[in-house]
Amino acid sequence: MVVAHESLFQFTKSILEATGCSEKEARLGAQVLLSADLRGVDSHGVARLSGYVRLIDKDRVNTKPNIKVVHETPSTGVIDGDSGLGLIVGPEAMKMAIDKAKNVGSGWVSVRNSNHFGIAGYHAMMALEEDCIGIAMTNASPLVAPTFSKERLLGTNPIAVAIPADKQPPFVLDMATTTAANGKLEILQRKNAQTPTGWVQDKEGEVTTDPFGVKNGGALLPLGGDREHGSHKGYGLSSVVDIFSAVLSGANYGPWVPPFVAFLDPVSDPVGKGIGHFFGAMRIDAFRPAGEFKSHMDNWITRFKSAEPVIQGHEVLVAGDPERQLEQERRKDGIPLLDPVVKDLKEVGERFGIAFPEE
Amino acid sequence: MVVAHESLFQFTKSILEATGCSEKEARLGAQVLLSADLRGVDSHGVARLSGYVRLIDKDRVNTKPNIKVVHETPSTGVIDGDSGLGLIVGPEAMKMAIDKAKNVGSGWVSVRNSNHFGIAGYHAMMALEEDCIGIAMTNASPLVAPTFSKERLLGTNPIAVAIPADKQPPFVLDMATTTAANGKLEILQRKNAQTPTGWVQDKEGEVTTDPFGVKNGGALLPLGGDREHGSHKGYGLSSVVDIFSAVLSGANYGPWVPPFVAFLDPVSDPVGKGIGHFFGAMRIDAFRPAGEFKSHMDNWITRFKSAEPVIQGHEVLVAGDPERQLEQERRKDGIPLLDPVVKDLKEVGERFGIAFPEE
Repeated sequence: MVVAHESLFQFTKSILEATGCSEKEARLGAQVLLSADLRGVDSHGVARLSGYVRLIDKDRVNTKPNIKVVHETPSTGVIDGDSGLGLIVGPEAMKMAIDKAKNVGSGWVSVRNSNHFGIAGYHAMMALEEDCIGIAMTNASPLVAPTFSKERLLGTNPIAVAIPADKQPPFVLDMATTTAANGKLEILQRKNAQTPTGWVQDKEGEVTTDPFGVKNGGALLPLGGDREHGSHKGYGLSSVVDIFSAVLSGANYGPWVPPFVAFLDPVSDPVGKGIGHFFGAMRIDAFRPAGEFKSHMDNWITRFKSAEPVIQGHEVLVAGDPERQLEQERRKDGIPLLDPVVKDLKEVGERFGIAFPEE
Repeated sequence: MVVAHESLFQFTKSILEATGCSEKEARLGAQVLLSADLRGVDSHGVARLSGYVRLIDKDRVNTKPNIKVVHETPSTGVIDGDSGLGLIVGPEAMKMAIDKAKNVGSGWVSVRNSNHFGIAGYHAMMALEEDCIGIAMTNASPLVAPTFSKERLLGTNPIAVAIPADKQPPFVLDMATTTAANGKLEILQRKNAQTPTGWVQDKEGEVTTDPFGVKNGGALLPLGGDREHGSHKGYGLSSVVDIFSAVLSGANYGPWVPPFVAFLDPVSDPVGKGIGHFFGAMRIDAFRPAGEFKSHMDNWITRFKSAEPVIQGHEVLVAGDPERQLEQERRKDGIPLLDPVVKDLKEVGERFGIAFPEE
């Protein structure tokens, strides 16, 4: 089923309002969620809406949060999200980072007591319109085993970096620090296909190509896959995301991070509050004139895109290219939704008496 | 041959003084170089000394640089290294980042017109003694092919992040953004062994396991190895390092970065000055009380190290563990040097009338 972006946006916004969010916050939350669907990160879009609702039902997400700055210096700050939706807390924290960048050149904000914030790229890209470089990262429920570990101690802990250009579209990196994101496993599960090696280990820590490996007690693997292919680097990057997001802010880290799914309870011995995020903004002209920087970015992007490809016709891409192309298509043609997602959304709609858009 | 750390340090310092460095700068340069040998990153230590000397001979490195701040805001700055040794320019820029962190919470310095700065970890670790988190990165001569590219457009572009703990040793990530560093290829070349797949492509862009693949016109591969295993993520991270280090500062980027080896000339159409670095420092207590942070870091580190390992006795490590262990051994037992490196160092010593330490 394909649904027009605007209809799906209105539906999502109405659901968030029905759960108790203010009109303004529901609009923002829907915008963040839909940006994932538009950019092709389907696992982080409306497919998660019913999950958020279940967390709200369990009082694990607060729809009327009092988001507070608990500490700050001219270029840094810590925000307590008061258990709010990460979709709302994230943009608030990113805005604080951008404001600090405007004042003193850069701003860095660590966040505790938050929840899943949607796609990291949305938050990082907020910086672009202010001629800033934007950075966003978050920790997440433990699904990833460090190199040599049988246990899952880290989330897919994404890093996003958005960098403005002039005539060229911006550079937007938005990556999980694992070899493959969980969403890709779900696609293979539906197809009953094997994963490549280096994506997943089984519950004994052995190599597997079973797309159900994680569900059956195994783990996702850090970028690199195994030691020989640099998994200690993916593990190291994921660790940095965890520490910046949670040890700096006072959120839960590592295996203590609360699960996203409502049917699993948070650990009984938390080391902090909620999950953590980390945001950064650097004003370009805090380094060199913005026009100069952006014209060199155009040159950088143009040079990389015109690199000689290994396979003719299979051109070299720059971070953000595939997502931007999908966004253009989906804004025009609508957002494709899988049947189980549609069923799920209809059920949520019925509960609140909100009709799901028929196309 | 094994040489005591102190003897090798004095020798290196004397050579740098003989090339024109001041006593103070020669001491610093030797310290940065030797830190690589101590930590087991042999490719970035004294093995490179003769390379630096050849660049000085060709006037591509200036031993009396006038290192200048060309732009700054309270939390950011740009430094022009005046073609100095990166070993000297790097610490100067990192010091500026730390000073800014002391004043406004964080400091971020991009550097142009510099040269190879040794190991990234040295610079990042400067922040530790100031209770700051340290970040260091640099671009480098193009040896790496982006995903889908036949051409080499990026360097091994390392990222280092150093984070203080309390009773536990610090977390120190120091990683090239490639699957494997060039130094690992050299080891396999000497052994006449094949590389694993995912390290190197040949000059047609095809998969190869030939350790001479890069020398024969091929390329190192970004972390991930191929698209299916996430090489677009390694490529994206390497791009961020290149942009932060060079497009922000006005250094050369991508394929324009000058080669480290003196027998290859820099490109005739530079897009900036020299190579670029990027440094960051964040004061811990600009986020939360330092004692609190460090005690949670101890907890983080202890939990990860005690994770159940896949293979009993093969424990889970935390970033920096292997290098720290090597440093302890080598400070005590001396630094092992390969015969070609000893020969090379003896020749440099003879030229300046400086005796190479006999053990």
